[in-house]
Amino acid sequence: MKIIGIADTTFARFDMGSSAVDELKSNGKGFKIIRSTVPGIKDLPVACKKLFDEKNCDIIIALGMPGPKPIDKQCAHEASIGLIHTQLMCNKHILEVFVHEDEAEDERTLIWLADRRAREHALNCLDLLFKPEKLTNNAGKGLREGFRDAGTLRM
Amino acid sequence: MKIIGIADTTFARFDMGSSAVDELKSNGKGFKIIRSTVPGIKDLPVACKKLFDEKNCDIIIALGMPGPKPIDKQCAHEASIGLIHTQLMCNKHILEVFVHEDEAEDERTLIWLADRRAREHALNCLDLLFKPEKLTNNAGKGLREGFRDAGTLRM
Amino acid sequence: MKIIGIADTTFARFDMGSSAVDELKSNGKGFKIIRSTVPGIKDLPVACKKLFDEKNCDIIIALGMPGPKPIDKQCAHEASIGLIHTQLMCNKHILEVFVHEDEAEDERTLIWLADRRAREHALNCLDLLFKPEKLTNNAGKGLREGFRDAGTLRM
Amino acid sequence: MKIIGIADTTFARFDMGSSAVDELKSNGKGFKIIRSTVPGIKDLPVACKKLFDEKNCDIIIALGMPGPKPIDKQCAHEASIGLIHTQLMCNKHILEVFVHEDEAEDERTLIWLADRRAREHALNCLDLLFKPEKLTNNAGKGLREGFRDAGTLRM
Amino acid sequence: MKIIGIADTTFARFDMGSSAVDELKSNGKGFKIIRSTVPGIKDLPVACKKLFDEKNCDIIIALGMPGPKPIDKQCAHEASIGLIHTQLMCNKHILEVFVHEDEAEDERTLIWLADRRAREHALNCLDLLFKPEKLTNNAGKGLREGFRDAGTLRM
Repeated sequence: MKIIGIADTTFARFDMGSSAVDELKSNGKGFKIIRSTVPGIKDLPVACKKLFDEKNCDIIIALGMPGPKPIDKQCAHEASIGLIHTQLMCNKHILEVFVHEDEAEDERTLIWLADRRAREHALNCLDLLFKPEKLTNNAGKGLREGFRDAGTLRM
Repeated sequence: MKIIGIADTTFARFDMGSSAVDELKSNGKGFKIIRSTVPGIKDLPVACKKLFDEKNCDIIIALGMPGPKPIDKQCAHEASIGLIHTQLMCNKHILEVFVHEDEAEDERTLIWLADRRAREHALNCLDLLFKPEKLTNNAGKGLREGFRDAGTLRM
Repeated sequence: MKIIGIADTTFARFDMGSSAVDELKSNGKGFKIIRSTVPGIKDLPVACKKLFDEKNCDIIIALGMPGPKPIDKQCAHEASIGLIHTQLMCNKHILEVFVHEDEAEDERTLIWLADRRAREHALNCLDLLFKPEKLTNNAGKGLREGFRDAGTLRM
Repeated sequence: MKIIGIADTTFARFDMGSSAVDELKSNGKGFKIIRSTVPGIKDLPVACKKLFDEKNCDIIIALGMPGPKPIDKQCAHEASIGLIHTQLMCNKHILEVFVHEDEAEDERTLIWLADRRAREHALNCLDLLFKPEKLTNNAGKGLREGFRDAGTLRM
Repeated sequence: MKIIGIADTTFARFDMGSSAVDELKSNGKGFKIIRSTVPGIKDLPVACKKLFDEKNCDIIIALGMPGPKPIDKQCAHEASIGLIHTQLMCNKHILEVFVHEDEAEDERTLIWLADRRAREHALNCLDLLFKPEKLTNNAGKGLREGFRDAGTLRM
């Protein structure tokens, strides 16, 4: 029985964690889910570290929604460095699902994007855990999570 | 008996540490508080590390007030990276409560902001320590510490 | 028998991993290849860490294609820091083969560049593994992977 | 008997290390001083690490004077990250005393600033080592090392 | 018998490693030299780590020549962070000798600069290894490697 961790924040303006959980449950079995919510994205690295070390998670989806200001971008950068560091300390994947508030032009689109990106990374999570060869089949395909795939370059 | 660490600086222009201590004492019990003050925010990471390793703190609130200049922003960035690193080394949460001097237009508002952000993170601290499920109930709610909550996105 | 790891992404818009594999097989023997594909470049550091620790790779070629936006540049920066950290933890080389989408003016040239850079780093990989003295013979020669060599400075 | 380390550089244009040593000796006893000088600020982190590990220092004052160019700012940033990392590895404080060449308008003022900042951090060093409660009494007081204190915010 | 490591790149457009080796041999004895060449500056950190761990080097001179583009500056930044990290892991000095291509106005001057900076850091290397007190005698003297010394500030 694999354990998938979900780490998210109260800062985010959409409940991306629930989107991820819903997508996971709709598309797989043989795992259980443990969720941990923290105030902001800079709290995510240690939340993930604890999910790995204290809850025995095998993989984690870490979700956050940085604001539009320069300080928010910097927080996202610091969180990302910490999430990569956590993965190296634990030898396990954390799928970082960050949706920047300024990626969409209105709130409706932002909701759509946050939900979709969370769901597409939930599928990546299942592939990493159960069918890694599926990812290799898609190497270099220009896949994107959320918005439309960029696709393979053409001559 | 849990131990909550308070790490703050002589550089800050408002005693945010005392706001946090007051809020903690007004809203919980079953813990004791240990305080450590250092000159500036770049001294906070090791101060927190020592609070964890030498004083057995279970969680820490780290408070600082970076100045408005580019060099101050860079110091805050370096301190944040160090605080995240500290958490990963110790597997414990540090709530970073930084109030940038240029976040408010006048000193009166800055005092209000610093006091309020410290108090709201003190409540987060108690939730992380005693009622983590309360945070999960607020996942994606667009909560902010200090200024008004951004709230959940609306269709 | 040496083991060469290939780590690449589904985000990339060209299958650089296959170029590297082809070049390796055309130019050497005495090794086997293990490939691991992840969604994006920020997933590469732990993918490499696992290739070293769980698959006993002796060296890795990590390939990615960051997009043209500032956030993409930042992701590449974070990935690079993580890849360097991974190497220091494992005492083994990872050849980072990043091709930025805005390095070429059209898709045709970008394909050419991605293929060529992957192949030239595959040769570097073989040299590091089997003929490190060849690299010392080329010290200071202004070699470039992909575009034309800059060459040695001239009086 | 406590041991205070002094780490400084040949790059700096003022002998801040001697200012710190003089201030330490004028204001305290019960300690000895060990000095280590390196070429530039990026050499300071490992110099401090060696002072902790090989010379048993209890605390270190690290002094440097970054130049005015962007590359100098970046070196200072890298050095700061390394100094924070060193502290976390050793669980001991390093007081970073950096004076940027462009902080003062003329050489005379820069000398004054470098001397004064080094001396004020020497006093912080003694407080951290022997009277940490003195720092807590000054929490939130808006203290500055070198230039005039900013002071506590006022309603 | 001390062991000095030389780590350099095929990317550099001048053979700075040979300048360093020549200067070392002309100015000292009681050491042997081990050289390791890698493709680019981001490969230097692990190359140095291996020189320390596998070849027992006591100190390393790491030489590189970043190009003039923003991406080159970023690579240099990442390499520097990695080199500092390596030193902290091994408790030994690495003298970083980077010459940026845009530091000189023509190729002739760039050759002069690269050669001279490599040689002056070779002398620093010998001092760190055999006469560290010589560096302390020069603390705060405003020394520069390559271009003219800035000198001590004057009243």
